[in-house]
Amino acid sequence: MPEPKVSNPIITLTTDFGLQDPYVAEMKAVILCISPTATIVDITHEIPKFNIRMGAYVLASACIFFPKQTIHVAVVDPGVGTKRRSLLIQTQRSFYVGPDNGVLALAAKSQRMQHIYEISNRKLMLPEVSDTSHGRDVFAPTAAYLANGILPEEFGPSIQDIVTPDFAKIMRRKDRIVGEVVHIDSFGNIITNLGLKDLSMIGVENAVDVKFGNKRLKLKLCKAYGEVEKHKPLALIGSHNFLEISLNQGNAARSFNIKSGDKVTVSLS
Amino acid sequence: MPEPKVSNPIITLTTDFGLQDPYVAEMKAVILCISPTATIVDITHEIPKFNIRMGAYVLASACIFFPKQTIHVAVVDPGVGTKRRSLLIQTQRSFYVGPDNGVLALAAKSQRMQHIYEISNRKLMLPEVSDTSHGRDVFAPTAAYLANGILPEEFGPSIQDIVTPDFAKIMRRKDRIVGEVVHIDSFGNIITNLGLKDLSMIGVENAVDVKFGNKRLKLKLCKAYGEVEKHKPLALIGSHNFLEISLNQGNAARSFNIKSGDKVTVSLS
Amino acid sequence: MPEPKVSNPIITLTTDFGLQDPYVAEMKAVILCISPTATIVDITHEIPKFNIRMGAYVLASACIFFPKQTIHVAVVDPGVGTKRRSLLIQTQRSFYVGPDNGVLALAAKSQRMQHIYEISNRKLMLPEVSDTSHGRDVFAPTAAYLANGILPEEFGPSIQDIVTPDFAKIMRRKDRIVGEVVHIDSFGNIITNLGLKDLSMIGVENAVDVKFGNKRLKLKLCKAYGEVEKHKPLALIGSHNFLEISLNQGNAARSFNIKSGDKVTVSLS
Repeated sequence: MPEPKVSNPIITLTTDFGLQDPYVAEMKAVILCISPTATIVDITHEIPKFNIRMGAYVLASACIFFPKQTIHVAVVDPGVGTKRRSLLIQTQRSFYVGPDNGVLALAAKSQRMQHIYEISNRKLMLPEVSDTSHGRDVFAPTAAYLANGILPEEFGPSIQDIVTPDFAKIMRRKDRIVGEVVHIDSFGNIITNLGLKDLSMIGVENAVDVKFGNKRLKLKLCKAYGEVEKHKPLALIGSHNFLEISLNQGNAARSFNIKSGDKVTVSLS
Repeated sequence: MPEPKVSNPIITLTTDFGLQDPYVAEMKAVILCISPTATIVDITHEIPKFNIRMGAYVLASACIFFPKQTIHVAVVDPGVGTKRRSLLIQTQRSFYVGPDNGVLALAAKSQRMQHIYEISNRKLMLPEVSDTSHGRDVFAPTAAYLANGILPEEFGPSIQDIVTPDFAKIMRRKDRIVGEVVHIDSFGNIITNLGLKDLSMIGVENAVDVKFGNKRLKLKLCKAYGEVEKHKPLALIGSHNFLEISLNQGNAARSFNIKSGDKVTVSLS
Repeated sequence: MPEPKVSNPIITLTTDFGLQDPYVAEMKAVILCISPTATIVDITHEIPKFNIRMGAYVLASACIFFPKQTIHVAVVDPGVGTKRRSLLIQTQRSFYVGPDNGVLALAAKSQRMQHIYEISNRKLMLPEVSDTSHGRDVFAPTAAYLANGILPEEFGPSIQDIVTPDFAKIMRRKDRIVGEVVHIDSFGNIITNLGLKDLSMIGVENAVDVKFGNKRLKLKLCKAYGEVEKHKPLALIGSHNFLEISLNQGNAARSFNIKSGDKVTVSLS
């Protein structure tokens, strides 16, 4: 197997730690002790506490823009210190490091997974591993040693499967598709798990009929927010190729009272 | 024309994207794909959504402290995807990249503008440009290619004018000046667009008379917050040379119920 | 004295400036002007305004994970512009730069303090020092020049003592210890100033009796949150070796209505 040595290694961090506590800085400190020239990029630390769905979505959105061989660490980890496994996943494009609870699944599956390892080699963790801080004591060292050129198989045994979240499922019928809201962004855009391909399968072209619970919206399928008047609703295929419902310069999620996890049904208009 | 190649290029980012979504990380990812050794510095991503005034003020405040040749990207862009132009401005000191809606204007005009280009060369953008994400697809690549030494004139045609915001205007009379509040900082300091020079013109020395609406304050002009008692108001020329109204260890904006955009009239005390 | 030149110098920043204003970016700009290859790491900028206790705690928690010779800057500075001194402290492990009000004290005292200097050499500050912005005009240049190899004694005269905060004090009795809450983290974990050694002195083993005001909790001393049922309380020695009171996947501080600074009494269960 070729050496996965990365020149200019980039390590990204996605957590629910927030920015007020010392926890994010501690992860960076550990990384810089092991791999002083690593470039660390924050994806976000503002995932709502324990919200694996949103962590998975944000990571899957951002990861495709990073250079090949980037090492992505995600820590949204309500089960820290229990028997949930620690993963190192190698895809065609990147590495993913984090708990085996679904937070890595959307990103890793969107690329081709090549190898999955269960992180268990204590020599590649901090000397003392706290059962409350695997971000700092396990995942940060894993990313840093990987950046230094340690081979993935050194971290632990190869495994075959990972926990797969059910929030990625889509129900396809001839005339409609049912998915869910995976993210409300800070502009209030409602982002679904329904992709361009899904919409094409039912023949969507210029407009869609969108149902949330018993709310029903007929929406123009736009390319830019400015195609409708200020504060009017629209649908668009967002920059990550997922269907989004937005208000031009307004907050769609608040207007329609939608939250992450809500079901969404799309049919022809 | 000399090559504007920058060694150790610094790229700064000022946006209203917030820190919870993947958007900021996507811009950084695009920059690092094109210019792996760029140093990226966040100015802020917490500009209130679509608040061009505040984006312009924060950028203009911070930019003067950065090294020469720094490339500043600002994305507060309610008109993304409409016909508003995309700008690359070269000043004596720095480069400014962003939409033509005023967000770059305070910073660029405070230095000497030398050249203005309308960004339009599709070869220097991402291969697919989404009409909702020019930060990532247009402005980030522009900054990164510029950091790599691509000449400014490669990005598009030279133009002569930029949109100028009216929030920078000041009315000067013999005995008083009328400006406005450009920013409320997180300490509650009220920052105006009235500079030291403006105050000198009406002869201000040790004290000022400040009017917001029909509130009127007689304030000592101080150099440090500690010159008045705790929770007492004061005026000072802040670290950016603008008149600020503060409470020592208190929140002036909340106490006096002032918000960004409010008019302020200053006369001799 | 040996040259304290640091290759790959790391400079950390801990402030109460928040992330919305230009102030943090200005500090980074000043650092990069003086020391272009410095690696800057944010510990946090979300310390509540003027909360020296929390700044001191967060810095003391994070600093132990950084490489030797790291330069830590902390600016929580209600007395900026008054006569409070500016400090540069050299410990066995690191450097600490900030105001003499206690914000550096926990961190510096937890390592061995070797030298304390009062920063006063105007040549190693910005040419103009604003009395409201020592973070940018004094402490950022100090850190950057130090990263460049300027000797600590160049910054000002050696002094003997620093202001010591009283929030670090613990009362020890045979059967109980009284300390206080030093931090509520964003998960709602209640972090005290009582260390493992303190608990051992009164013979704590598997359980503790914790009193806040007249609330009294009998708690299992756990190693991981998952050792108790969801939303049940537990005690643990956190990853910084201090006693923490938590709820498994819940917010302990909100449930028990505890805030930073509250007294806590621990006895055998």
